[in-house]
Amino acid sequence: MLTIGIDVGGTKVLGVAVDSLEPAAVRAERRVPTPEGGAGLVRALGELAAALASDAGSAAAIGVGVPGLVDRAGTLHVGPHLRHITDLPLAAQLAEETGLPAVVDNDANCHAVAEQQGGAAQGASEALVVTLGTGIGAGIITGGALLHGANGFAGEPGHMIVDPNGPPCPCGKRGCWERFASGTGLGRLARDAAHGGRLDAAVALSGGDPDAIRGEHVTAAARLGDAAALGLVDELARWIALGLANLANILDPAVIVIGGGLVEAADLLLPPVREHFAALVMAGERRPPLPIVPARLGEHAGAIGAALLAAGPDQWVLR
Amino acid sequence: MLTIGIDVGGTKVLGVAVDSLEPAAVRAERRVPTPEGGAGLVRALGELAAALASDAGSAAAIGVGVPGLVDRAGTLHVGPHLRHITDLPLAAQLAEETGLPAVVDNDANCHAVAEQQGGAAQGASEALVVTLGTGIGAGIITGGALLHGANGFAGEPGHMIVDPNGPPCPCGKRGCWERFASGTGLGRLARDAAHGGRLDAAVALSGGDPDAIRGEHVTAAARLGDAAALGLVDELARWIALGLANLANILDPAVIVIGGGLVEAADLLLPPVREHFAALVMAGERRPPLPIVPARLGEHAGAIGAALLAAGPDQWVLR
Repeated sequence: MLTIGIDVGGTKVLGVAVDSLEPAAVRAERRVPTPEGGAGLVRALGELAAALASDAGSAAAIGVGVPGLVDRAGTLHVGPHLRHITDLPLAAQLAEETGLPAVVDNDANCHAVAEQQGGAAQGASEALVVTLGTGIGAGIITGGALLHGANGFAGEPGHMIVDPNGPPCPCGKRGCWERFASGTGLGRLARDAAHGGRLDAAVALSGGDPDAIRGEHVTAAARLGDAAALGLVDELARWIALGLANLANILDPAVIVIGGGLVEAADLLLPPVREHFAALVMAGERRPPLPIVPARLGEHAGAIGAALLAAGPDQWVLR
Repeated sequence: MLTIGIDVGGTKVLGVAVDSLEPAAVRAERRVPTPEGGAGLVRALGELAAALASDAGSAAAIGVGVPGLVDRAGTLHVGPHLRHITDLPLAAQLAEETGLPAVVDNDANCHAVAEQQGGAAQGASEALVVTLGTGIGAGIITGGALLHGANGFAGEPGHMIVDPNGPPCPCGKRGCWERFASGTGLGRLARDAAHGGRLDAAVALSGGDPDAIRGEHVTAAARLGDAAALGLVDELARWIALGLANLANILDPAVIVIGGGLVEAADLLLPPVREHFAALVMAGERRPPLPIVPARLGEHAGAIGAALLAAGPDQWVLR
């Protein structure tokens, strides 16, 4: 079944047309900037869907992944990276706009479905997909299906508190996991280290300004073998592993897939993540090994997963 | 269907006979001390089952709840409170011993099933049951069924790390949730405060020795209105709420049920837990209220749930 899937990001919107039986083979794709406001978003998604249908043929349904809390009716309650949007009945408005059946889910849930159907968690009935980007998202698959919870709000470990005395989070709390284990967290760790004079090679790569240092300067310096940068990568890896261990204690997945921007440094990051994880998970020495692997579908994962959710589980290869 | 359910604790074993259609009405019950070693345990459970069958009539199956990591085949991999027992194929040996179909599950999972069938989470298809005793256990119900995970090890939030600089845990890590939010955690908070001279009323109730202070001295002093004791109860409540908020962010249950020894102080503890929870859960102001309620089935919950698991979901009132 051909369906349209759209991944709404903080700055750009990516749409694809996908056949649910070949989820990794994208038939058409288009990108537009993320508009402001709910009405603008609905209009832009409708236009994107029409353009994709003219590229790839008419679609049977449309699915959308958005960052934030989405309820089971497809209403976006709050999206921290979508300004001016709260309580938007996106699925209902999009169905009206396009004339197609529409489903809306959290973007990380969409990632998880895509990776489970055609990516790094292929065929796993118990899987955890964690996206480490500006923030942290997660999609939890159990018994072969997404865990949505009572309201559709499940899978938000980014605001799991892992250090009550940690740095303040824009959410109003302190020490949320995404303060440490995201791209933002790496930037903060790097700036702190740079100002402390402990990260000279990475600062040099950033042009000499400790405030200009970003995650990619740290990973570049680490790849050159700089000990301070490697130490910082290890610190980041330990924080990632700590949250993953907490999640594994609760969910006991068969595989953990890491997506999001930080996955570009997977070769550098995942070996120490795996090492710290084994030491931090409960009874690590008595569990079967738990693979922690990079996502495979890259930047298309969210849109592909949204298309699959629109098609519905009875149209999937793996049920 | 009449089945036998047995809850194995660190010091005593409680067995019941239950009709799955009336789970809260226990037909027979017996208690024996927890024996040492795997062979002794299997023998004792077999004798207990025979005694219960002679009390209540012949049973169709036997279910057992044990503290620790139990896999889906009913093998107990490790039980921190059962000395000398590791890798015990308890379900298989018990089936042989009794001639009955036997299931074995984690004790908190059994609690959760009982509370969902005939207790405080009755009828909820998304529920979280957390037992706060010496340690912390949890049973997660999603889509109306227990979340077991890949190996059967899901639902172990007690070793979720909530403060990487926190006190050491016997598990080898630091700052596990159960260091703070269990009966043991309350005792530690109380001894620290007593030695600091901040808990005189509770110390007086304990006979004047700061090292002899226990949780019940703190709750007794708090009930008398002692400010220091009330402050300590609030500190405990905040730690409980922090872990519950982390779990709610991940699982989004419709109800949280609190069982275990600390529930005896539910009247004192749950009001501040609810208050802290609302402030700590992600987007608390945008979620439907999430009830946090005490367990209803008391000390029988684990055994009743084990009996229900033995009967199987198609014999339950609520499916």
